[in-house]
Amino acid sequence: MEQVRIGIVGFGDQGSAYVKHIHQEKQVEGAVIAAVCDVNTQKLAAQCEKFGLSCPQFPSHEAMFKSSEVDAVIITTPHYFHPPIAIDAMKAGLHVLSDKPAGVYTKQVKEMNAEAAKHPDLIFGMMFNQRTNEAYRKMRAMIADGDLGQIKRVNWIITDWYRSQSYYDSGAWRATWRGEGGGVLFNQAPHQLDLLPWIVGMMPVKMQAHCHFGKWHNIETEDDVTAYMEFPNGATGVFVTTTGDFPGTNRLEILGTKGKLVCENGSRLVFFENEVDEREFNRTYKGGFGTPKTTETVLIEKAEAKQHVAILQNYADAIRGLAPLQVPGTEGINGVEMMDAMLLSEWLGKKVDMPIDDDLYLAELDKRRAAGKPLAEESGAVLDTAGTY
Amino acid sequence: MEQVRIGIVGFGDQGSAYVKHIHQEKQVEGAVIAAVCDVNTQKLAAQCEKFGLSCPQFPSHEAMFKSSEVDAVIITTPHYFHPPIAIDAMKAGLHVLSDKPAGVYTKQVKEMNAEAAKHPDLIFGMMFNQRTNEAYRKMRAMIADGDLGQIKRVNWIITDWYRSQSYYDSGAWRATWRGEGGGVLFNQAPHQLDLLPWIVGMMPVKMQAHCHFGKWHNIETEDDVTAYMEFPNGATGVFVTTTGDFPGTNRLEILGTKGKLVCENGSRLVFFENEVDEREFNRTYKGGFGTPKTTETVLIEKAEAKQHVAILQNYADAIRGLAPLQVPGTEGINGVEMMDAMLLSEWLGKKVDMPIDDDLYLAELDKRRAAGKPLAEESGAVLDTAGTY
Repeated sequence: MEQVRIGIVGFGDQGSAYVKHIHQEKQVEGAVIAAVCDVNTQKLAAQCEKFGLSCPQFPSHEAMFKSSEVDAVIITTPHYFHPPIAIDAMKAGLHVLSDKPAGVYTKQVKEMNAEAAKHPDLIFGMMFNQRTNEAYRKMRAMIADGDLGQIKRVNWIITDWYRSQSYYDSGAWRATWRGEGGGVLFNQAPHQLDLLPWIVGMMPVKMQAHCHFGKWHNIETEDDVTAYMEFPNGATGVFVTTTGDFPGTNRLEILGTKGKLVCENGSRLVFFENEVDEREFNRTYKGGFGTPKTTETVLIEKAEAKQHVAILQNYADAIRGLAPLQVPGTEGINGVEMMDAMLLSEWLGKKVDMPIDDDLYLAELDKRRAAGKPLAEESGAVLDTAGTY
Repeated sequence: MEQVRIGIVGFGDQGSAYVKHIHQEKQVEGAVIAAVCDVNTQKLAAQCEKFGLSCPQFPSHEAMFKSSEVDAVIITTPHYFHPPIAIDAMKAGLHVLSDKPAGVYTKQVKEMNAEAAKHPDLIFGMMFNQRTNEAYRKMRAMIADGDLGQIKRVNWIITDWYRSQSYYDSGAWRATWRGEGGGVLFNQAPHQLDLLPWIVGMMPVKMQAHCHFGKWHNIETEDDVTAYMEFPNGATGVFVTTTGDFPGTNRLEILGTKGKLVCENGSRLVFFENEVDEREFNRTYKGGFGTPKTTETVLIEKAEAKQHVAILQNYADAIRGLAPLQVPGTEGINGVEMMDAMLLSEWLGKKVDMPIDDDLYLAELDKRRAAGKPLAEESGAVLDTAGTY
């Protein structure tokens, strides 16, 4: 395949960003925008004109998938539609790159993964652009290599996702149960909820979260979350996120028996390395007050991250057989398990076991959807998201 | 009064530190060690010899209080004895400086405060030496002055209280329900549990904590705690502490609508100041993605803290009428409310309202005492605590 013919599904804020990378700025080798679709055909036409796109426009993904115009799709619709459209694409023999999150509720994401299992020939990727960050890659590699010993604690304060009321007002689907299916956990924090288990190499087994709905904004869904989690090996952690804090914090610390990694602002990475494993010191030291010796090393001063362009390039390369896929779409379930567990814990008012009960989550979500705002007409307004994720 | 005649109640690790300051190094003007008492008379004699003390020794605090040898006492016994001995001292007309925590359970601390209310003529102080830290004093002053606006979030990760098993093995009372009444919350973290409400100027009204008992050490009580709290104005926070982490973290961040204060290691203090109040920005900004402007200022690079000597000096000065008391003993209830709420939440497996139910807490504590290790004979060993708090 000389050029991967890509179809964009949903030409809003995020679709614009990808069209800019691929079509306007030609940043992705071996890929062209071959078709676009959006249910809002007026917006679609305006967007094509804005970006100088002369490719076919379709009013539905079904029409585009049947058209033979595309080899691969990028799904940038509201979250609920990610899994069903991905399933339709796979059934049509098309490669899939889905925006995050993989979906809203675990049940639909598992259905998507089950469909993907039937199509080992198709490339199925997820837009977790923050996995390209070298600081997070380094942390993951060091933990996998045992440099931290046994993981004991994982604290991520990720409160620098500030959004004002005007952001929420820009799209009628935003932060509604029916339109988006969640708030900060489903729109902003999916990056960190994907990264956390990916970096430490394990998923939590218990979660207790305190979620506040419309605390800082006039919205239905959660915009302030404090979660406590327990891992299979006994490690614990907190995850604090919100769109209401300014100035926020982005500080990830991971402690193991052999030392501690601290990453600030997804950029500066410091390693505190113990001379002896703390567990050994605990057993053998006899002096009462005393600690192991530790050395502090700045591993990365300013981390590079190639972000979306790197994920798009890898998608095209993987389709063309030039490189292995870096972010398998099936891994998207992990982040959705995390966010669903947090909301479920709040809704039930207790600590929940993970993986969660898929049907129970959907039933609880459906209660909120039933009581939630009806889906309003979209204005067709498009925000420039550059530099916001 | 030319010289305040101080009696030390309990001549163990902490009593040694105070005798060193007052008697050996003469760091406290207007105070002398006039008597000492300890139930372990053998240890008492050895300690007096070690520190070159020729003052009267008593086998009980009652005997010392009746002796007319002292004007004021410093209580450095195991925690349970702080309130009853303070009450005995006040009844004997003696000034009181109690070591932290004020007590183990709220009921006994309230009894102590009730007694104190009957003796307005007596100085009643608490050894919260970390209140002398200029970084914490600055934070408190700025918040009181409204520099942060409305408080929204308070996160304290205070995991640098590392203790090895040998520390716990050094005293049979340590980290037992009957001897100490708690673990890291009652011995190490009382400083921060006092500072937190003192700095932000309000107590939490709800607390949910996850406490792990003997997780990192062979002890009965909690050595790993993650707590979530809610304040009356809707602000939330986390408090994470342990004696099992190395290297640990000491990072306090307090966010308000006008900015954020971050204090690292009780030393470096940074202020991020918003140009406009975030709540106003949220209402008035119309641009979709966007944030207030903020400026970052290092307020203190390395905070000074005069610690115990300053508290001892202020105690002597207050008794001599030379200065107002800086840390009223009656404020000790706040930290005890915090630690008790954390344990009670874990024991009941739910979020608890604050102030807690004093009788319920004592009943739950009594269950653990009944099932706990019997009080063993103390070895009389004394640790050098210099630089550990």
